[in-house]
Amino acid sequence: MSKPVVKVGLCGLGTVGSGVVNIFNQNGGMLSNRAGADLQLFHVGARRDNPNCDTSKVQVSRDIFQVVHDPEVDLVVELIGGTTIAKDLVEAALNNGKHVVTANKALIAEYGNELFALAEVKGVALRFEAAVAGGIPIIKALREGLAANDISGIAGIINGTGNFILTKMANEGSDFAEVLAEAQALGYAEADPTFDIDGTDAAHKLVILSAIAFGTPVNINAPFKEGINIVGAEDLEYAKELGYRIKHLGIARNHGDKIDVRVHPTLIPEGKLIATVDGVLNAVMVQGDAVGEVLLIGPGAGAGPTASAVCADIVDLGREIGLGQKCSIPALGVTAAALKNRELMPMGEVESGWYIRLSADDRPGVMAEITKLLSAENIGIDSLIQKHEAADAKRVPIVILTDPASGDSIQRAVNNIAALDAVNGELVKLRVEEFRGK
Amino acid sequence: MSKPVVKVGLCGLGTVGSGVVNIFNQNGGMLSNRAGADLQLFHVGARRDNPNCDTSKVQVSRDIFQVVHDPEVDLVVELIGGTTIAKDLVEAALNNGKHVVTANKALIAEYGNELFALAEVKGVALRFEAAVAGGIPIIKALREGLAANDISGIAGIINGTGNFILTKMANEGSDFAEVLAEAQALGYAEADPTFDIDGTDAAHKLVILSAIAFGTPVNINAPFKEGINIVGAEDLEYAKELGYRIKHLGIARNHGDKIDVRVHPTLIPEGKLIATVDGVLNAVMVQGDAVGEVLLIGPGAGAGPTASAVCADIVDLGREIGLGQKCSIPALGVTAAALKNRELMPMGEVESGWYIRLSADDRPGVMAEITKLLSAENIGIDSLIQKHEAADAKRVPIVILTDPASGDSIQRAVNNIAALDAVNGELVKLRVEEFRGK
Repeated sequence: MSKPVVKVGLCGLGTVGSGVVNIFNQNGGMLSNRAGADLQLFHVGARRDNPNCDTSKVQVSRDIFQVVHDPEVDLVVELIGGTTIAKDLVEAALNNGKHVVTANKALIAEYGNELFALAEVKGVALRFEAAVAGGIPIIKALREGLAANDISGIAGIINGTGNFILTKMANEGSDFAEVLAEAQALGYAEADPTFDIDGTDAAHKLVILSAIAFGTPVNINAPFKEGINIVGAEDLEYAKELGYRIKHLGIARNHGDKIDVRVHPTLIPEGKLIATVDGVLNAVMVQGDAVGEVLLIGPGAGAGPTASAVCADIVDLGREIGLGQKCSIPALGVTAAALKNRELMPMGEVESGWYIRLSADDRPGVMAEITKLLSAENIGIDSLIQKHEAADAKRVPIVILTDPASGDSIQRAVNNIAALDAVNGELVKLRVEEFRGK
Repeated sequence: MSKPVVKVGLCGLGTVGSGVVNIFNQNGGMLSNRAGADLQLFHVGARRDNPNCDTSKVQVSRDIFQVVHDPEVDLVVELIGGTTIAKDLVEAALNNGKHVVTANKALIAEYGNELFALAEVKGVALRFEAAVAGGIPIIKALREGLAANDISGIAGIINGTGNFILTKMANEGSDFAEVLAEAQALGYAEADPTFDIDGTDAAHKLVILSAIAFGTPVNINAPFKEGINIVGAEDLEYAKELGYRIKHLGIARNHGDKIDVRVHPTLIPEGKLIATVDGVLNAVMVQGDAVGEVLLIGPGAGAGPTASAVCADIVDLGREIGLGQKCSIPALGVTAAALKNRELMPMGEVESGWYIRLSADDRPGVMAEITKLLSAENIGIDSLIQKHEAADAKRVPIVILTDPASGDSIQRAVNNIAALDAVNGELVKLRVEEFRGK
């Protein structure tokens, strides 16, 4: 019995696109074997060729929309990026009854809801494993592998550039600006690294994970965002002294009716495995009521890992297309109609421990004033470091680790502390998450 | 539109069975929502009730085969364990055209090939996510999430009891027998812990992973096995001094035409994340040509985690059953016909670094004799520790870390070393794996 043929159209021949072509060229027979269908890279659309991959045996169009309108193409892979042409392209593909695979986190974060709904109406699938955490199959793990669980929380290192910078700052005691410049010179950070630094990129990925975990529509406006630029080399050092590491985490937590969704530098106990995930690696921790805690670690970007995720989606869909049947798994794990909005918990209500670093006059009574202002807000102190860095220093750095407290109460306490005569200059506050887990 | 009903039959109400009942009782609505079908726990078969779960709303039969022959049941969950009645039960279920979900690693390791073939003939699915690494969705990750990759190797901590014992030995400097007794008293190790200790349990899981990774039939006889009882407290200590940790790993590696499959205590560089996975946790590392390296960590046993995996399989199958269509994913990722046997590389040919510990007379020339015997086999020395433990000691422990060498050449060298007049008593040799990539 000859295998059914599944024809794949690929739009975009950038880094990931060339990675997909290379996987087809290298492992094409294996992909087909696993899909139980003859998976063919049939039509590529790209404004120009990419010397990193060989498309000589494939039909190539300079107008990517020719791929989407090719009646022979069963499945379109969107790898052009952005949210304008890419959106038109994906919509056209879905409207033409073609399945779509994309690695485009911004597109899914911004337009996922309408695109998923359109796919459902058209009876085709829209898959996006590569949109979050590159080669780590976290979408599948969350949507399928952990489907038995009421998810209590997810926390992820989901921006490799940010993790590379924080790791290097921690290892070398260097400042943010210095390491960023170095990362740019090495090609690990883009010329405009804003979205990696300020949490925008991580937020795009987080809202996708959060939607699957909690069965909500994708809400790009949900996340509170705080960038890694607020972390100083000394904070990484103090955190270490206190038994913690600082990671730029995307966190989403289930409070029953409400959820919180946020990206911020976070102190994590050094004993938690996610605290030890360094460099450009990504990692996502999932806590569920049945499973407890699961952690997935791997490369979050790059041609190979991202293309690995894209091609896994192609194989999955190829299996169903080959059998001539419906893809049984909705984009977010439940049908669009079954998604339920959940109220966002304001960050002022979200409780966590806090790390506070400030600079104060080195004279008797200052510490008493500071701790009094914390206790006025019912905030307990977990640890405290005060150091005399030089015998003749007139000012000392003070580092405080608090017991869990809401964002609002810590803000009031910190405002009052900053207003003290003895306290001057920079005041850093960072959230601490113990992840003691359900 | 009312949802299609999918009726689940559950055989066995032990630890995992009660966990499945509890998930249905707690998260039943969520499971149905995710499956897009009304998933009902419809018929339970168990010789006796389990006070840890409430089955009062479910039909319960004392004869488990009544579940398998219940014409209303669509999907049978086998959780009775063992390979005799369980095999009859699964065969009967498949023959009756019912899908099967099992957590039974021994059954899959021993009879997987014939059961998968039977399932294919009958047009139903046999799923076993819970059979390997408990709550970690590693089967799905390997079979689907990493399907684009030519897998070069897998390495896993896939027996929680063994990892608990090794971790405790390392942390406390205690001996194997001592820690084992403690683990038994605490309920972390069974009264007869043979299969956990000698690698049999890990081997069952490894052959399942290996079959999926390399597209071969399941071969229960494939693995070379070495137990953790050969590791002494001093080996853990020396390994640490050399920058390594010792873990009981299941390893399978792709050499092109051949594969190697083995379970043995292994020195791993402390910088590898899998080296830091302690206690009862499980972890599986997968290396693929596109993705690079991915590591999944989580609870490998227990009612909740194992039932989480069982119920994920139920949701997956429920989706397809609800749509009235075929489950598109073959048990091992490719159809039985597409599986290919691969020759096993004899352990004597498998290369790795080696850790050798021996005891020798403390006199000049001994080290020269030993190193000469290694170099006679072309075995390079990476590190060497020789310690004078007491001023008047007549014998000294010698620890050697070698460059990569085959099992045969190291065995010849070690035999010759053991025959030296100056060398007496225990001689330990353990494999070292650097996991430098492909």
